[in-house]
Amino acid sequence: MGVTVAIDCMGGDHGPVVTVPAALSFLRSHPAVHAILVGREESLTPLLGTALAEFGPRIRLHHASEVVDMDEPPASAMRSKKDSSMRVAVDLVKSGEAAAAVSAGNTGALMAISRFVLKMLPGIDRPAISSILPTLRGHTYVLDLGANVDCSAEHLLQFGIMGSMLVAAVDHVERPRVGLLNIGEEAIKGNEIVKQAGELLRGSGLNFYGNVEGDDIYKGTADVVVCDGFVGNVALKTSEGLAQMLSTFLREEFGRNFLTKLMALVAMPVLKKFKHRVDHRRYNGAVLLGLRGVVVKSHGSADSFAFEQAIARAVDAAGNQLIERISRKMASMSEVAA
Amino acid sequence: MGVTVAIDCMGGDHGPVVTVPAALSFLRSHPAVHAILVGREESLTPLLGTALAEFGPRIRLHHASEVVDMDEPPASAMRSKKDSSMRVAVDLVKSGEAAAAVSAGNTGALMAISRFVLKMLPGIDRPAISSILPTLRGHTYVLDLGANVDCSAEHLLQFGIMGSMLVAAVDHVERPRVGLLNIGEEAIKGNEIVKQAGELLRGSGLNFYGNVEGDDIYKGTADVVVCDGFVGNVALKTSEGLAQMLSTFLREEFGRNFLTKLMALVAMPVLKKFKHRVDHRRYNGAVLLGLRGVVVKSHGSADSFAFEQAIARAVDAAGNQLIERISRKMASMSEVAA
Repeated sequence: MGVTVAIDCMGGDHGPVVTVPAALSFLRSHPAVHAILVGREESLTPLLGTALAEFGPRIRLHHASEVVDMDEPPASAMRSKKDSSMRVAVDLVKSGEAAAAVSAGNTGALMAISRFVLKMLPGIDRPAISSILPTLRGHTYVLDLGANVDCSAEHLLQFGIMGSMLVAAVDHVERPRVGLLNIGEEAIKGNEIVKQAGELLRGSGLNFYGNVEGDDIYKGTADVVVCDGFVGNVALKTSEGLAQMLSTFLREEFGRNFLTKLMALVAMPVLKKFKHRVDHRRYNGAVLLGLRGVVVKSHGSADSFAFEQAIARAVDAAGNQLIERISRKMASMSEVAA
Repeated sequence: MGVTVAIDCMGGDHGPVVTVPAALSFLRSHPAVHAILVGREESLTPLLGTALAEFGPRIRLHHASEVVDMDEPPASAMRSKKDSSMRVAVDLVKSGEAAAAVSAGNTGALMAISRFVLKMLPGIDRPAISSILPTLRGHTYVLDLGANVDCSAEHLLQFGIMGSMLVAAVDHVERPRVGLLNIGEEAIKGNEIVKQAGELLRGSGLNFYGNVEGDDIYKGTADVVVCDGFVGNVALKTSEGLAQMLSTFLREEFGRNFLTKLMALVAMPVLKKFKHRVDHRRYNGAVLLGLRGVVVKSHGSADSFAFEQAIARAVDAAGNQLIERISRKMASMSEVAA
């Protein structure tokens, strides 16, 4: 896909040493993609090697003098750092020079900047963060994952619409199943907002599956799981904690003594395949939905492999007209409502 | 501990074939405990074998003619089944014949019956469900897990108090760390109710750790994690789903072909130890907190081993004066407030 992606090369825990190699590796395997590397020239240039010669017009360095800190308050990042790599990357989407922006920086700042610079799509009240998670059947998209702590039923409906359009664009599933995260399958379960959201989703024309429970996320019951940002964030972080604990326990048991280490050696090929299958790096790259432009947030601690997945997700969403799909759907729904 | 426990032998997916052997095994290893087996005499007697002779006065059969169905609405179970095994087991706690009741039956019905029969402790508005989860450091208690979908800040404070007293009673930790489940560590994060709950917990005299995130549950950052029932239920079910998926993937990878099966055979001792360490059956038995009596809910699908853990938890809580501890704490806190 002939997409140009703007990459905030300074964001994340590791900055350019991770983002630049990821960008170069991605360009190598995607010959139609162009990249604008945004950040301090003096930090990026030494990492480019022969890339400028190798990729010619497909790669461009865009100097930005400031960097948003990982723990900087969003308001301060927005007001006082107009030349931050994050801001400039999003500005490039606004101006049309890039079709998508990727950053591993501070989530709050990226959200605030994206909202301020790009603005919301008509009919969408708030941006939502959507991540992809592995399931028994493949993968599923969950949103919101922390941008919105207090949601109305209408917000949850909008998440359902945006999530559906994301899956339609990226996975080419035209009518993805939308599940509403709840604490029981019956329509009468849950709190008032969730019950109302169920009604709205049922009447929305989306392919609404109904209520799903926490375990349905990993069963792959739905293609899109909708929830408020508080619940979504807890579900995601709890999953991270559990996965971390299980992997620590497995390592401890295999590392106990000479004999168990020998067993680990024998079982290594299988353990490696297992690890690859659930490698969270493969699922890196959360899409900020609802904006008039594609913005993808990488995990701050991402390594090059993981950051490359986030770039891929941004290119995929932009190349498959994510924004146009959401706009069209919102327009058609407001016609029905009118 | 010289505790008498009333066991609803008819509840759960499997009924007496699971509950009766679990009770007998528990009595065998706990010589000071007495058990009242509640259920249809004709269903229980054939499973007792020589138990009546073996345990003498330590075991008693209490006939109850009805059974609450697993999907029966709580209101109907309460109104129309006054002689259900579940109801009679709770009645035995009310009358003082038993110090605790255990049931693997329908959660909603058990909650409604317990609340109706036993009543709430002074100062506690609603019962909460508390479960134990494994962590990197040992284990932690999480509440509420689904009884309360809309919680006020005061409810969350009460959960903190009850959870603390549970850990004090059962784990003999006098000032357990209480964490408030949130989507960031900073005090300003989260929705309004959680922020207010943070204030209340900070001023409560409990050992309040502050906000914790989803991954802190399994890190063991706090001894007690407080959240509303919606969030707690999602966190628990999501964990179940993830654990299930990972174990399926591991089994699939080891089962792929002759060679991988051979590797599994070699690694078996380690895999077994790992499995034991995270065996969810060991954590079976959720305590219904806030009532004037100890009631423990076993997972409906529990096997004998798992159900025995639930009995152990009930005996432990009753033997360590859980109810008295919560009452005393509530009384001392209302004195401070007055």
